[in-house]
Amino acid sequence: MRMCDLILKKKRGEELATDEIKFMISGYTDGSIPDYQMSAMTMAICFQGMSRRETADLTLAMRDSGDVIDLSAIRGIKVDKHSTGGVGDKTTLVLAPLVAALGVPVAKMSGRGLGHTGGTIDKLACFPGFSTALSAETFVHNVNTVGIAIAGQTASLAPADKKLYALRDVTGTVDQMSLIAGSIMSKKLASGSDAIVLDVKTGNGAFMKRYEDAVALAEEMVSIGTLAGKKTAAVITGMDQPLGCAVGNSLEVIEAIDTLCGRGPEDLKQVVFALGARMLMFAERAADEAAAVRMMEGAIADKSALQKLAEFVEAQGGDSAPVYDTSLFPTVKQTLVVNARSDGFVNRILAEEIGTACMQLGGGRENKDSEIDLSVGIILKKKNGDAVSAGEPLAVLCGNDEKKLHAAANRAAAAFEIGKERKEPDPVIYRRIDA
Amino acid sequence: MRMCDLILKKKRGEELATDEIKFMISGYTDGSIPDYQMSAMTMAICFQGMSRRETADLTLAMRDSGDVIDLSAIRGIKVDKHSTGGVGDKTTLVLAPLVAALGVPVAKMSGRGLGHTGGTIDKLACFPGFSTALSAETFVHNVNTVGIAIAGQTASLAPADKKLYALRDVTGTVDQMSLIAGSIMSKKLASGSDAIVLDVKTGNGAFMKRYEDAVALAEEMVSIGTLAGKKTAAVITGMDQPLGCAVGNSLEVIEAIDTLCGRGPEDLKQVVFALGARMLMFAERAADEAAAVRMMEGAIADKSALQKLAEFVEAQGGDSAPVYDTSLFPTVKQTLVVNARSDGFVNRILAEEIGTACMQLGGGRENKDSEIDLSVGIILKKKNGDAVSAGEPLAVLCGNDEKKLHAAANRAAAAFEIGKERKEPDPVIYRRIDA
Repeated sequence: MRMCDLILKKKRGEELATDEIKFMISGYTDGSIPDYQMSAMTMAICFQGMSRRETADLTLAMRDSGDVIDLSAIRGIKVDKHSTGGVGDKTTLVLAPLVAALGVPVAKMSGRGLGHTGGTIDKLACFPGFSTALSAETFVHNVNTVGIAIAGQTASLAPADKKLYALRDVTGTVDQMSLIAGSIMSKKLASGSDAIVLDVKTGNGAFMKRYEDAVALAEEMVSIGTLAGKKTAAVITGMDQPLGCAVGNSLEVIEAIDTLCGRGPEDLKQVVFALGARMLMFAERAADEAAAVRMMEGAIADKSALQKLAEFVEAQGGDSAPVYDTSLFPTVKQTLVVNARSDGFVNRILAEEIGTACMQLGGGRENKDSEIDLSVGIILKKKNGDAVSAGEPLAVLCGNDEKKLHAAANRAAAAFEIGKERKEPDPVIYRRIDA
Repeated sequence: MRMCDLILKKKRGEELATDEIKFMISGYTDGSIPDYQMSAMTMAICFQGMSRRETADLTLAMRDSGDVIDLSAIRGIKVDKHSTGGVGDKTTLVLAPLVAALGVPVAKMSGRGLGHTGGTIDKLACFPGFSTALSAETFVHNVNTVGIAIAGQTASLAPADKKLYALRDVTGTVDQMSLIAGSIMSKKLASGSDAIVLDVKTGNGAFMKRYEDAVALAEEMVSIGTLAGKKTAAVITGMDQPLGCAVGNSLEVIEAIDTLCGRGPEDLKQVVFALGARMLMFAERAADEAAAVRMMEGAIADKSALQKLAEFVEAQGGDSAPVYDTSLFPTVKQTLVVNARSDGFVNRILAEEIGTACMQLGGGRENKDSEIDLSVGIILKKKNGDAVSAGEPLAVLCGNDEKKLHAAANRAAAAFEIGKERKEPDPVIYRRIDA
């Protein structure tokens, strides 16, 4: 088999066979197939596409390029959750203790944030002492005893994907649906869970700006998971404004805690419940969505979900005191309020701009070696559909550097689109996609 | 400027600007743009194409990546000739002395043969002592005094093309018209002639199997040459059977000499006259094709063209005695006749198979380090349209190894398609394409 022939085959629009895809990915991983052939192939794939079968084969080949984690020592049906990334997305921080409190084992690998969206691992670092560097034994032990463990993603997970993604990034071949879906799912399938629930975001602050693209990606990923023998479902959620009101690491942790206390923002709660319902159903803890939602409301009301968060933080070496007293989280030196300049209605909040403003404050990573300031961030005072009067606060910026605060405030102010007419906000939950 | 943005631009189907193409080619030549970005770009070009302007810019950028030869020290209008390659193509060996005898300065860079088609440099090596390693001074001096010089192509000529062609070869991006045309024309334009005549072959033994592709390539090349300020014309010629009757280095030289003596095969003569007429017209030696043909017939009849070949061979250190006595060329140990198995008509001779049979005899290069046997080859006894009776010779194979002879004979026999009905042979000259 020669890689050049496979490139020509795909270029002609033909379907690659399973063993051809395996040959290509294993050759690319071990270096026998060079970057320049792989980039020609990915460009050909951008034009000719891949069938559902090819996409699943590609994903499985990338999964098999490194370690595939064995979670069989963990009792129960393990359900993983993945989000395509958004601004203010603290869903995992609410969801993991919530479903764990209801008996769903949560064994999660998570990445760090890069660019305008934050990562769960960074947010958890707000608990002093918290560590995601767990041994395999501790990981399994914690899930079996506490119900949750969250570990950092290791380099040995789907190395082919890592290499291929870096190549696509510099060869103009990022935006191909099968390649995106394969990249996400190869890591999810290597993580060893029994079922996968996907949060595919759409809107100006999401990777998939257009709704149809989000649906196509969700369908592609559900197809891959199902073909790989895992129960898989997706929920398309809105990212035409940040999720909830808090953007920035410790601010988001506080909002997650508030949500576990029953006083979280409505949109965040809707996303948590939509995803949590699928997790409870896959784990055979709830028969349907209505029952699942009742169970989750109960776990919030009786504080068992909040307590689970504290237990989880302690089990990974963290100080859980801030769970019960959020004033213990580090605070900023200065705040700056962004006010509305005119009367009207908030019709859109450019989520990407809010995320970038938070990064400017020092709350995000511009490159993988950046240090981040966990205390800084932005609190939205108005969200889509809200009426505002001139001079009324739109957002509060929390920072530790006056110059950065002013730059970020300008950006945040420009992110609000205020109109004379009220526009009905886009839905939080667009659609549920099941196999 | 970032290469990744240029790739995305081409991927979207947009036209690259002149400075973008220059940036790309100079970066690729100096190594600052890596192979993996260039291969993604060439694959995007395969799908989105290039405009005539982009193609000319690419060609000029490749021309300028190395030495551009200055032939201004040579008196007169220098006309170069290029063939896209065919089996039995000894045109240059006839054409160069023929037009030189009529006052057209021939200053030619030529390549060696690879695969099923032979190269002019290999054929000239049949004259003992002949050398194509000429200093720049000798090259210019020989053209000014003898009228012809043929040198081997140096590595410093269009190095970007050399690098890009090697990359295309292993990334499935060879068959793109603009890239093919740019590759050929960048070397021709760097060779310093004032005008270019192209022999674009079509048929089963040609690189361009389909007539429409040959026309498209010819038009593309004529457009590039014209945009680069050189008089350029192309002739589409047939390669649905080998050109002439001889295939193999010394056999082809003998056939070329026969043609210069006025007893060459008709198809070869037609190709020589069609190309030669354009060369004489570009060099302002003939007013039209009819006048040019009369001049060429004269130079054959009075032996001045044959004499020019002898002078040229001597000037480059070769022994010219075989020009006047072809029995002095090395002979083979053995011949093997391939006979027709049935009565009928020759309807097609798979030229590529004949070329490969010649290579099997040892007469061609399988890779760039192969040694070749100049004496071996194949003489066709029948050509397209000829009637044959069972048992009548179709071809004579000349070789030095019995095993190779039998293998080559089987292949040569299979190359002849004999039908019950006579099929009118394809034309030798399909079409002339002028700017």
